[in-house]
Amino acid sequence: MILLFESGVDESVVRDVTLRLQAAGLRALRGPEPRRAALVVPEGLPPELAAELEAEPTLTLVQPHEPWRLVHRALRDAPSVVRIGGPRGVAIGGGSVAVIAGPCSVEGRQAVLEAAHHAREAGAQLLRGGAFKPRTSPYAFRGYGVEGLAQLKAAGVATGMPVVSEIMDASDLPAFVDHDIDCLQIGARNMQNFTLLAAVAGAERPVLLKRGLAATVEEWLLAAEHLAAAGCSQIVLCERGIRTFETATRNTLDLTVLPLLHEWTHLPVVVDPSHAAGIARIIPPLARASITAGADGLALEMHLRPEVARSDAAQALLPGELARIMADVRVLVALDGRRLSPAASPACSAPPR
Amino acid sequence: MILLFESGVDESVVRDVTLRLQAAGLRALRGPEPRRAALVVPEGLPPELAAELEAEPTLTLVQPHEPWRLVHRALRDAPSVVRIGGPRGVAIGGGSVAVIAGPCSVEGRQAVLEAAHHAREAGAQLLRGGAFKPRTSPYAFRGYGVEGLAQLKAAGVATGMPVVSEIMDASDLPAFVDHDIDCLQIGARNMQNFTLLAAVAGAERPVLLKRGLAATVEEWLLAAEHLAAAGCSQIVLCERGIRTFETATRNTLDLTVLPLLHEWTHLPVVVDPSHAAGIARIIPPLARASITAGADGLALEMHLRPEVARSDAAQALLPGELARIMADVRVLVALDGRRLSPAASPACSAPPR
Amino acid sequence: MILLFESGVDESVVRDVTLRLQAAGLRALRGPEPRRAALVVPEGLPPELAAELEAEPTLTLVQPHEPWRLVHRALRDAPSVVRIGGPRGVAIGGGSVAVIAGPCSVEGRQAVLEAAHHAREAGAQLLRGGAFKPRTSPYAFRGYGVEGLAQLKAAGVATGMPVVSEIMDASDLPAFVDHDIDCLQIGARNMQNFTLLAAVAGAERPVLLKRGLAATVEEWLLAAEHLAAAGCSQIVLCERGIRTFETATRNTLDLTVLPLLHEWTHLPVVVDPSHAAGIARIIPPLARASITAGADGLALEMHLRPEVARSDAAQALLPGELARIMADVRVLVALDGRRLSPAASPACSAPPR
Amino acid sequence: MILLFESGVDESVVRDVTLRLQAAGLRALRGPEPRRAALVVPEGLPPELAAELEAEPTLTLVQPHEPWRLVHRALRDAPSVVRIGGPRGVAIGGGSVAVIAGPCSVEGRQAVLEAAHHAREAGAQLLRGGAFKPRTSPYAFRGYGVEGLAQLKAAGVATGMPVVSEIMDASDLPAFVDHDIDCLQIGARNMQNFTLLAAVAGAERPVLLKRGLAATVEEWLLAAEHLAAAGCSQIVLCERGIRTFETATRNTLDLTVLPLLHEWTHLPVVVDPSHAAGIARIIPPLARASITAGADGLALEMHLRPEVARSDAAQALLPGELARIMADVRVLVALDGRRLSPAASPACSAPPR
Repeated sequence: MILLFESGVDESVVRDVTLRLQAAGLRALRGPEPRRAALVVPEGLPPELAAELEAEPTLTLVQPHEPWRLVHRALRDAPSVVRIGGPRGVAIGGGSVAVIAGPCSVEGRQAVLEAAHHAREAGAQLLRGGAFKPRTSPYAFRGYGVEGLAQLKAAGVATGMPVVSEIMDASDLPAFVDHDIDCLQIGARNMQNFTLLAAVAGAERPVLLKRGLAATVEEWLLAAEHLAAAGCSQIVLCERGIRTFETATRNTLDLTVLPLLHEWTHLPVVVDPSHAAGIARIIPPLARASITAGADGLALEMHLRPEVARSDAAQALLPGELARIMADVRVLVALDGRRLSPAASPACSAPPR
Repeated sequence: MILLFESGVDESVVRDVTLRLQAAGLRALRGPEPRRAALVVPEGLPPELAAELEAEPTLTLVQPHEPWRLVHRALRDAPSVVRIGGPRGVAIGGGSVAVIAGPCSVEGRQAVLEAAHHAREAGAQLLRGGAFKPRTSPYAFRGYGVEGLAQLKAAGVATGMPVVSEIMDASDLPAFVDHDIDCLQIGARNMQNFTLLAAVAGAERPVLLKRGLAATVEEWLLAAEHLAAAGCSQIVLCERGIRTFETATRNTLDLTVLPLLHEWTHLPVVVDPSHAAGIARIIPPLARASITAGADGLALEMHLRPEVARSDAAQALLPGELARIMADVRVLVALDGRRLSPAASPACSAPPR
Repeated sequence: MILLFESGVDESVVRDVTLRLQAAGLRALRGPEPRRAALVVPEGLPPELAAELEAEPTLTLVQPHEPWRLVHRALRDAPSVVRIGGPRGVAIGGGSVAVIAGPCSVEGRQAVLEAAHHAREAGAQLLRGGAFKPRTSPYAFRGYGVEGLAQLKAAGVATGMPVVSEIMDASDLPAFVDHDIDCLQIGARNMQNFTLLAAVAGAERPVLLKRGLAATVEEWLLAAEHLAAAGCSQIVLCERGIRTFETATRNTLDLTVLPLLHEWTHLPVVVDPSHAAGIARIIPPLARASITAGADGLALEMHLRPEVARSDAAQALLPGELARIMADVRVLVALDGRRLSPAASPACSAPPR
Repeated sequence: MILLFESGVDESVVRDVTLRLQAAGLRALRGPEPRRAALVVPEGLPPELAAELEAEPTLTLVQPHEPWRLVHRALRDAPSVVRIGGPRGVAIGGGSVAVIAGPCSVEGRQAVLEAAHHAREAGAQLLRGGAFKPRTSPYAFRGYGVEGLAQLKAAGVATGMPVVSEIMDASDLPAFVDHDIDCLQIGARNMQNFTLLAAVAGAERPVLLKRGLAATVEEWLLAAEHLAAAGCSQIVLCERGIRTFETATRNTLDLTVLPLLHEWTHLPVVVDPSHAAGIARIIPPLARASITAGADGLALEMHLRPEVARSDAAQALLPGELARIMADVRVLVALDGRRLSPAASPACSAPPR
């Protein structure tokens, strides 16, 4: 059950209702909308209490058909805007479109710095790079770990780009916080790793939640609800292709659910066409189509020399390709009245030579 | 094996090679490119003959990795342009974008005529409408049959729009020809109905080949190859969503393969977001995304009063929604240097009152 | 709506109810149970008529949750037994288990005769063989057509085995009837070829309806309902593997639905592990598992020299492997109180040398 | 690359080869076969070293087509037998068949003890029960945690049954070890939680690795390889249904791959029909079919009062149903020359009243 208060209701009213719910042995989770208080009661209300509360003039009771609550569209007047890199960081959602670009894996201090400069120059606002890599085979390259986080962050600082990196285990969280990784990515394989979700929710920084390979939209939004129920208020969803019978492409990008997501949740949604396609040369049209379908951003793999990349080489874009995608995206978002987010801060060092 | 002749080679050279192939007991199928002769030898060449032919100065032998031949991209210098409604009909492909719109089922002379006028006014160039409806249940409405064809064609003539309608059985072909249905649609369930494919291939009119619900791209292109091998030179592919585990939408639109299709075949590809989504209100962003991803056209279900439609009511657009999609499509195709096809002919009657 | 009459009710009562339904403009389809009359009213009953009929003492009204009617389990007291090869033919269903075996394609008079002798000797009761082969590529071997039917039937007659063969088009039906093909197989690709279903339903012989590659159980049973509504009273379902993301095997055998099918329909169900597995050496355990899960029979591809088979070589069993499967099946069906059907008639010729 | 030594080769030879590999900067992982030494070199061998080693008379080099190594069938002369509950515990694999039964969730000391007695009486050898429950919704019951482990173990000790329980996070491992949980289950959602796999591999006790909902067999065996490469030598695979388009059942049990698994890996495979079916009444035939298809065991959910179960109520068997399945399994395994594993130890207390 969702309890929506009238806009501008006095905070004491909310507190009072909260106490009544708690007195009845119920949880009351505070919604994320700053302009209008809302409470979520996961267990639902007993009939008498429901009747009582319905009589409150400042209160509306909403029982959504869908099983998610805190991430439900009904909880907010307007879509959420998530800022990555602090209060003046890069905005995603609510009409602001941002692009996350960078190498699949961080592969050395100089390499990631160069990649960052090219990504920034091409127009991307956020830098990605994997330091901890989930790999199907135990014998594949698994990333540089903490050292990779340091290299990624240094490159982000040098280019004025907040950084995004995948976290695979709660025990690595202190390292992500120490290196001030601006956005914690939950990979597709970990979408339902509920202990990891609870851990990152406590880190007070944005989380990028990738959709599991065979996760329904319902399971995905309930994974986001796990984050929200554990206190995370800055969640970005990331569609990255689902597993189907078709083997011509690595996965099948599910753009069909994109417009539905905007009805079902206030969370912003970015699309990662790189992992869906698995083939670099077909990524540009898919990136454009994702924006046209309503994506609030893109996540793109870029590499200066894909032929030597240590992972996902086949799907890495060249910087020039990224720049062309950015130019297209700039036009497409203008067409529907949105805008590319400005960069978080000016680049603070010259590109490496 | 594909034998590509030099541009402008004398027809006698092609005839000579054809005879040599036939003398060796091989089939030689003529390719569709008018500017450059090509022969397809489905069985492949014995080594000696291959060596002999490779020595011909005007001839290049190509063995594509993919199993399709006549519809292979390598067979043509430029993508195919299919014209629906005769030589001056509506062009699809090669930079020309066209939209097929109309009701799921033809539901009466007046109803389809009104729908046609609205579709034409909204900017669609082609009129669709089902007279023979494949229905999962034997007890559902199956269309008006031949009478429906007559009503559809009359509406098309009145509005200057070539018409597209699904054919379910070879025995109905004479009726489709008698009523001059301009484009024969093969439905998703019949994509591998090989006797039907062979029959419609002989009708000398364009065929719209929908992708089967669980057909791989390879199976789909081989179904097109069935048409081509049986003599059909005007094939339009239609992606309409594939069956996946996700149940939030009726099907999952597979835009991921769209850019690959343009590498693999010279055939134009239209996208039907209506059947993929199954929900009218999410169709506009999917229609736009399809065009941005490179679709050569759209197939859209439209109904004046969806609430009384006899089939697929939930996914029918209103005329105003169609008009807005057309406006968006006009801009999007201009952005990448394409154009909307002009209408086949001026509307030749006033709209019904 | 289903109207179940009391056992032994006078036929005049049924006729009377039928007339009242028809007078109300409703269809009344007679159910297949000989011991107890039943009527199916596809459109449902208007409330007053329903109330009236509910008052009849000999009548029970049943509104099943599922959308199928004539093939619904509720329509019969006991599961259907289908006899292939006439009234004294091979029984499938209701505790009788039968095995259909033979080559994928009929490849010549002598070859199919030898195969038939081996299949018969191994213990199979029914002979299969494709004369019309649906092939993904137009350039693949498509079977010997009518000549193949003649060869198959001759082999069946010589060995005392009724024969099963796939029909791909209604126009071939006279040839199937002329050659007295005992059971008409509808292939997976044609499961929703509704004109073909209507045509074979009129042939007054058993139909083997394969499940489509991506057909839900509901779609499959409604395809069977298409047959039943068109007058076919002898339908055998055939599960042959569904298309999933897994590529280790050709398809994924869906045994999970087998026990549900026996709750949902009175029709017998055979399983074809050959097409599901695509690998001969893993077929025996799958064949056994199918029987244990409740299959009423098996369809198995067998070839004397798989290495020269013109289609599906990789999944063809050798006669000795078939014999071992038959021995296992004999024990497994005995365990749960069922029995292998006896052969239709004694083999009437010596095996060829 | 796999290096297989001759049976009975002196350990010093193995040591010598290991040192040569390490000197070349290569890893050399020791295989699990006690009767015959084997080394896995994940990175492969440089050509000269390969040539040198090929010349060794006691050594055979094997390069399997499949990407897994330590769990590869080629690594062992005979299939692995995993013992749960110590060296005299319950055997799974190599002809020994065992059944894991118990409630979905541990729901109190008395409830699990009663369930254990009934499971034991019905013939199951191993007791399962969830203390940490992964739940799609954050608001669902998540299990009693450590207290649940204590209750489960107590019930196992009282009934002489080793216990199996799911571990969701590495940080819970000490609790599982403290309570001496005999077998650590990795759930489907965590199949590729690689940090969890590495952690449990170090616990020196058997691991039950469930297949991910959309995991290919290759991904599943590579997840097992993650365990093996991290030192785990007692791995049992568990097929539990994959996600497909079919919604009639909760999942689709993939028995088709079972015979392939026995070719591809030496690990035993148990099947969990409860989660695949999701409907209790269709579990018995699926359980039987799993054994007939070659499963080395079953995992079954059982509850004394399914109507009050706190999770997965719809798929819980009653004790009597379990007993009937056990009776059937006993016969079926005898048919193919296998046997039910004996219980680990006599039940050491009277059943609770």
